[in-house]
Amino acid sequence: MQRMSDPSIAVPDAVISSVRNVSPDQIADSPRPTTIVEAPRLGAHLGIDVFLATETFQRTGSFKFRAAYNVALNVPNPHVIAASSGNFGQAMAYACKLFGKRCTVVMPANSAKVKVDAVLSHGGRVDLVDTTKVKRATRVAQLAAEHPDAYVASAYDDPFVIAGNSSLGDELGRLAAPPDVVVAPIGGGGLTSGLIQAARRSTSTMAVIAAEPLIANDAARSLREGHIVSNETEPQTIADGTRTLSVGKHNWELLEDGLETIVEVPEDAIREAVRLLFFLANLKAEPTGALGVAALLTSPETFRDRRVCCVITGGNVDAAVYAGIIAG
Amino acid sequence: MQRMSDPSIAVPDAVISSVRNVSPDQIADSPRPTTIVEAPRLGAHLGIDVFLATETFQRTGSFKFRAAYNVALNVPNPHVIAASSGNFGQAMAYACKLFGKRCTVVMPANSAKVKVDAVLSHGGRVDLVDTTKVKRATRVAQLAAEHPDAYVASAYDDPFVIAGNSSLGDELGRLAAPPDVVVAPIGGGGLTSGLIQAARRSTSTMAVIAAEPLIANDAARSLREGHIVSNETEPQTIADGTRTLSVGKHNWELLEDGLETIVEVPEDAIREAVRLLFFLANLKAEPTGALGVAALLTSPETFRDRRVCCVITGGNVDAAVYAGIIAG
Repeated sequence: MQRMSDPSIAVPDAVISSVRNVSPDQIADSPRPTTIVEAPRLGAHLGIDVFLATETFQRTGSFKFRAAYNVALNVPNPHVIAASSGNFGQAMAYACKLFGKRCTVVMPANSAKVKVDAVLSHGGRVDLVDTTKVKRATRVAQLAAEHPDAYVASAYDDPFVIAGNSSLGDELGRLAAPPDVVVAPIGGGGLTSGLIQAARRSTSTMAVIAAEPLIANDAARSLREGHIVSNETEPQTIADGTRTLSVGKHNWELLEDGLETIVEVPEDAIREAVRLLFFLANLKAEPTGALGVAALLTSPETFRDRRVCCVITGGNVDAAVYAGIIAG
Repeated sequence: MQRMSDPSIAVPDAVISSVRNVSPDQIADSPRPTTIVEAPRLGAHLGIDVFLATETFQRTGSFKFRAAYNVALNVPNPHVIAASSGNFGQAMAYACKLFGKRCTVVMPANSAKVKVDAVLSHGGRVDLVDTTKVKRATRVAQLAAEHPDAYVASAYDDPFVIAGNSSLGDELGRLAAPPDVVVAPIGGGGLTSGLIQAARRSTSTMAVIAAEPLIANDAARSLREGHIVSNETEPQTIADGTRTLSVGKHNWELLEDGLETIVEVPEDAIREAVRLLFFLANLKAEPTGALGVAALLTSPETFRDRRVCCVITGGNVDAAVYAGIIAG
């Protein structure tokens, strides 16, 4: 099917800064500007002056496409290998299809079929690995050795990923009334480091706060201890986009001095945030996407008397999980 | 709580055309521009070049606020009486609060508590009527006699309502690439007649198609017979926003010659459309809001090879109903 040309498409500056030979089709499929959603009922409920920047309508349904597009645009390699069972995998597969590159996504053998299908539907190759026998990183290294022409893309610890994500921060900085503070989920730190990068080059003053599940608080502990701290195992938070062992090195360089703070949120607050977005803002968010709102619930005093932008990072959530949360 | 000033707020021309003494607060709270959502996966699934204009993020969660705001803005009366158990009631209450008017909403005694609470939360007065004993129209007439200073607002059969809704059509006509055809739900005909009004004054050519539940097809029968036909009783379609007895007289004047056609959709297609919006567009829609997509499912040949805009009219849906649809 022919892709429609959308009148509201704007190509973020950060993304096109290094564009060389990009076809009209590729421009038409570049990252969409974020969708600003007012949420007066949510704000009244929380007692906070908050609006939402939702990436749930971004291509492939999450902000990860900003990063994936920037990787595919900038690396000369004809093949990209990524380890991701979630949003980055499908975003990378879609971006590679767009640029005529091959894409291999390493996923655990027990991944949900819907996630495997999403990668396949974008023409990606799925490499299933039994993670009880072989670590994903090991399998990625094997594949990299087998395919010396491939670029191995981290979902967060990569300058192209950070720069791609920073385009969202640029958009917020260019609003007529930019927020005083932007709050976004943290897993590997790809998004928050990008937001810091954008805030530093912005003419407006915009603080960046991260929201992290309490049971996956390696980033908060890293900030307290002054160096990168790792989780022993992948924490089983419902915010599955933050199930990382630690933040990345490239991310840490920006996060260390750039984050105002990290709010650590209990699992119950994440579920409640998904419900509040459903009931008070008509917004479908995945649990990871609701982490910013969960931070407002958990630590309202941090946000009082400031104009707050919550980044809703993605909307891809299993229907049964979602139905269970909103009906629960 | 202070209302934030949203940078993306624009005041639709049709709404401000008759503005006299409007305070900054009232301007800040005027109808929001519609939110354009690309839906490439939905389009690919349907084989139709479609995008969405969603009113789920409109104030009070549905397009009805466009109409309610225009009524409150234009009538001199200090009191507005409306009969509505749904989105128009809460939109009217909210608009009246904004303009310092009283608002009375006549609702069936067995209305869902959430709907009664929504009206009350906006400072509206709820008049519950036992519809097994007294018709709602009778009760409205009683109230009108008791309150001679009140304006009785129909949710659809009112020139201010039609003009308010037409602002959505103006926005679509002003897109860089306006749609060839816009498809929207029809109940009383308030929205579709407004879209026709806008299409007639637009420089672009934009056909208007209505989507109506098959079990509530009075409008389609009216179009076939050349005069207004009524349902015997309120049809119990899941698309509760279309449970009207017939289209209004003011609406019919525009619909009769202005509609290209009406697609009659089975209940199953409405449920499937809600699911498709959830899975393929990350969009929470109420069943009535999904009628346009249901029309694309039911009669794809009507829309083939045209650039189609589906209006998603609202997102206010009971959580249990919604969970049942997406998990079903």
